[in-house]
Amino acid sequence: MDSFAYRDGELYCEELPVRRIAETVGTPTYVYSTETFRNHYKAITKSFAELNPTVCYSIKSCQNLHILRLLVGLGAGMDVVSGGELFRALKAGADPATISYAGVGKTDPEIRQALAAGIGLFNIESEAELANLIELARQTGRNTRAALRVNPDVDPKTHRHTATGKRESKFGVDLERARRVFEQYGRNSTVRLCGIHLHIGSPVNTVEPYVQAVTKAVQLIEDLRSARFEVDTLDLGGGFGANYTEGQSAELAHYAEKLVPLIRGRGLKTVIEPGRSISANAGILLVRTTFVKPGPDKQFVIVDGSMTELIRPALYDAFHFAWPVQPGAAFVPLVRQADLNLPGSVEVDIVGPVCESADFLAKGRYLPPINRGDLIAVFTAGAYGFVMASHYNSRPNAAEVLVDRDSFRTIRRRETYDDLIAAEQNA
Amino acid sequence: MDSFAYRDGELYCEELPVRRIAETVGTPTYVYSTETFRNHYKAITKSFAELNPTVCYSIKSCQNLHILRLLVGLGAGMDVVSGGELFRALKAGADPATISYAGVGKTDPEIRQALAAGIGLFNIESEAELANLIELARQTGRNTRAALRVNPDVDPKTHRHTATGKRESKFGVDLERARRVFEQYGRNSTVRLCGIHLHIGSPVNTVEPYVQAVTKAVQLIEDLRSARFEVDTLDLGGGFGANYTEGQSAELAHYAEKLVPLIRGRGLKTVIEPGRSISANAGILLVRTTFVKPGPDKQFVIVDGSMTELIRPALYDAFHFAWPVQPGAAFVPLVRQADLNLPGSVEVDIVGPVCESADFLAKGRYLPPINRGDLIAVFTAGAYGFVMASHYNSRPNAAEVLVDRDSFRTIRRRETYDDLIAAEQNA
Repeated sequence: MDSFAYRDGELYCEELPVRRIAETVGTPTYVYSTETFRNHYKAITKSFAELNPTVCYSIKSCQNLHILRLLVGLGAGMDVVSGGELFRALKAGADPATISYAGVGKTDPEIRQALAAGIGLFNIESEAELANLIELARQTGRNTRAALRVNPDVDPKTHRHTATGKRESKFGVDLERARRVFEQYGRNSTVRLCGIHLHIGSPVNTVEPYVQAVTKAVQLIEDLRSARFEVDTLDLGGGFGANYTEGQSAELAHYAEKLVPLIRGRGLKTVIEPGRSISANAGILLVRTTFVKPGPDKQFVIVDGSMTELIRPALYDAFHFAWPVQPGAAFVPLVRQADLNLPGSVEVDIVGPVCESADFLAKGRYLPPINRGDLIAVFTAGAYGFVMASHYNSRPNAAEVLVDRDSFRTIRRRETYDDLIAAEQNA
Repeated sequence: MDSFAYRDGELYCEELPVRRIAETVGTPTYVYSTETFRNHYKAITKSFAELNPTVCYSIKSCQNLHILRLLVGLGAGMDVVSGGELFRALKAGADPATISYAGVGKTDPEIRQALAAGIGLFNIESEAELANLIELARQTGRNTRAALRVNPDVDPKTHRHTATGKRESKFGVDLERARRVFEQYGRNSTVRLCGIHLHIGSPVNTVEPYVQAVTKAVQLIEDLRSARFEVDTLDLGGGFGANYTEGQSAELAHYAEKLVPLIRGRGLKTVIEPGRSISANAGILLVRTTFVKPGPDKQFVIVDGSMTELIRPALYDAFHFAWPVQPGAAFVPLVRQADLNLPGSVEVDIVGPVCESADFLAKGRYLPPINRGDLIAVFTAGAYGFVMASHYNSRPNAAEVLVDRDSFRTIRRRETYDDLIAAEQNA
């Protein structure tokens, strides 16, 4: 699953004891594994090999430039959703032809930036956006390709905040409307409407919603082809799950096994946009215990990481497995699961220093006895972790480090107090 | 209530048409009113005048240095919850004697920083923290004063994320435990435990929870005095509500009217820590419409501001009144209320460009017909707005501007793409 494992009673990332990172860089710190990124990326290309897809890594899940460079080096394209992400993709050396650009609110400067870069595919969310793209492409003399994002009205059975393919969502257009969009814009030569884009949500832990969505999309494509529209691209989007707990999500090979037969042999260029399935288990958030405080019903383990580093528990009611970095041999967790309760454990909430009750990392867990100074790893934090960091409570952003075998390097330095006010000083 | 009002069919901040700011600085932008900050601060000092309190402005609600300077100029002290906020308070020129420092996870470097600055009051959240403070004060040879945060176990009837004074919270200690903390530490001369601190949550829109909490705190203080502990300080905390809709929160004068009689004549130095009641209605988030998209049941108004600028709707289910900046005379809203529905209005969701369904600013509102390019003001965004901004989807942080009569100045410049990766480049 990933390259974070306990050995001799302490946590390693690949060949490196994680505590060494805290000793050098301090905490809170995001720790990523090169090997895990590489393995997850390769698992995707291998699983979907029969379709020879363009794999556009979803930058929004984990955006550090050094990680983007690692993935570009493996052959990845990039899925971007803003001008800032496009900027990152290009800085990382991505081939513009392998960049897809989605998002409901692309601004004119962002669209011009993407046209100038010569990206491979615009994923279109509304008629107004497509009309505007055609106008801007004409003005700038840059022809391009676009796929229409379709709302297949399936329930991905994920959090309400991250379900994006239902009928009432702000994203895409429904199937009936998609046909009308092709009738109106499907023969334009400035912006060639050549594909259908899906993205039903994230994380989607089972294959069935994809099967439903792809079945509808393929039917739509065949209908459009019957009406003599040249549709040659199917962008499946991303959203494949990750194992926040052991076995929570289907394997990538299993998604592929069900989806490939629906797509192959139809002469479709396939695009997939995995983010979480690559990055989530490639990173942990490493924090240190500031105080242990007895509460009326359970202990509060107060750590130096918080909702400013990882907002998923507060925002999405998300579960992250959390465990001491040096628990000793008696307390090595054999699996990451929600109700793990080894003999001698204590019920705790792991909370941060931020002044509100939303600031927690884990609630109601059974952990080995924790002492002030103990390091704790919050697992599966590589996706939608650092990218959602804030400066709430004037907290400088954490450092990010990338491990490769038995060494690591800092890929984003810890911010300073001066960084916090830099944009206010010269204002 | 504040200095944002419609005149001749368009929104003004004080004497300045708000659209002028968008024309110069672009969008999304936070717009603050000097006059409103001043009036709100003065309303507090006036309401509580009989107690001659130290008013410590809660930096976490709205932290821009230029705003802190404005409030320091009016005589405000500062309520800080981190080393970063202490850094800001000192940069803004606050008198260290008027700085109080709360928070459950103060780290050793932060405590040393506060001791070195000679702050007026540590608000203590646990026995472990107090023991550690005594140790660090002794090491550094800096005596200080502290108040013990007490959990009065009252229900503030606010969002679960921001209720902080209930028994099972990570904050403070309960009343019984408070007595034991005084017995153990209450005669220490290095850290003089001289007060009781309350903070029951935010926003607390009614006075009754405060009355309950203060009644319990005063009783505790009298008990402690009977046991010959020298308790001379009562820190009421903050959390006073703000009018997100007309009349939603009690007036400050009303809070004071009920609380002052409980406190006066007892020889107590009073500290209050207002944040939201000062800053919330002193700011709006100004955004521009990128696209208007018909949906199956209602319109989506897609704007260039998002959950990265204002996460309160997604995180706290918070309501923010939102209205066009130039609605014309027929659509001037007379009050800010949730169900406003003027003749000719259209049902809309106001959503941002970020790629998830959590990215909305307002849902199910009746707005005048909106067109691409229209400016929209999101009201009561001064508190817990910009301070919680993220760079999710690689979005540069918005600009902040401060209006004073008919002019404005940028108090935080808009970030650039280069800012996004600065800490990754040199890593």
